Amino acid sequence: MPTVDRRTGLEVLDRDECLRLLASDPVGRVAVVVDAGPMIFPVNYALDGESIVFRSDAGSKVSGATSGFPMSFEIDGIDEIFHTGWSVVVNGVGREVVDGTELARLRALELRPWASGPKTHWIRIQPKTMTGRRVARND
Amino acid sequence: MPTVDRRTGLEVLDRDECLRLLASDPVGRVAVVVDAGPMIFPVNYALDGESIVFRSDAGSKVSGATSGFPMSFEIDGIDEIFHTGWSVVVNGVGREVVDGTELARLRALELRPWASGPKTHWIRIQPKTMTGRRVARND
Repeated sequence: MPTVDRRTGLEVLDRDECLRLLASDPVGRVAVVVDAGPMIFPVNYALDGESIVFRSDAGSKVSGATSGFPMSFEIDGIDEIFHTGWSVVVNGVGREVVDGTELARLRALELRPWASGPKTHWIRIQPKTMTGRRVARND
Repeated sequence: MPTVDRRTGLEVLDRDECLRLLASDPVGRVAVVVDAGPMIFPVNYALDGESIVFRSDAGSKVSGATSGFPMSFEIDGIDEIFHTGWSVVVNGVGREVVDGTELARLRALELRPWASGPKTHWIRIQPKTMTGRRVARND
């Protein structure tokens, strides 16, 4: 029997299922706080162990994040026909990767942004929490 | 010729195209700031004029948002085969709708959350900015 969140009625996905879903999706959404407000943007990403890595351009809101700041990351899968879906949310701290050895390893990952900018900065989101939810099919 | 964002290489979608996409999607993602950090969650929503409305449970992070606070909202469409996609981001202020006449009108909208919770609170995001981007097919 799956665990169900009593407040929302949603099925709770365990960490292994969250990681499996994170490993299988090419696009997620990052949220950061800019001038006390939230900002969302979509990114191509890769799962590296249990952390999220994505590439960013110089001059973007997240480049230069060397000191670490809170980030939220989300993926989902939606079935418009059956009105079901799932989502995984990772909350953690973002840091720009600057170590040469680590950068070389990350560059070998399967992570090629679809957008054409140079995106020379690599950002890692180290998870503090990872939660997954599924809307059960209701017919 | 579409306008292209020189920094990112992405095609810029105009406001009419953003509104058309917002009117056609059933699920988006909201980001809010909680304890100085960002939090993302997916929602079923409807477009009401040029604002986003969604329903929320009592006790959620956004219910009681009567005084207005910054919210970011995102939708996207991803083509994993051709590595293309688009996204629309709305940044604005969220407020709980409490006026009875307005609530009655909103209840007549085509907005039924797929999750089973009661979701008795209605939140409106009044847009301050609306931006759309598309990754051109690159083959």
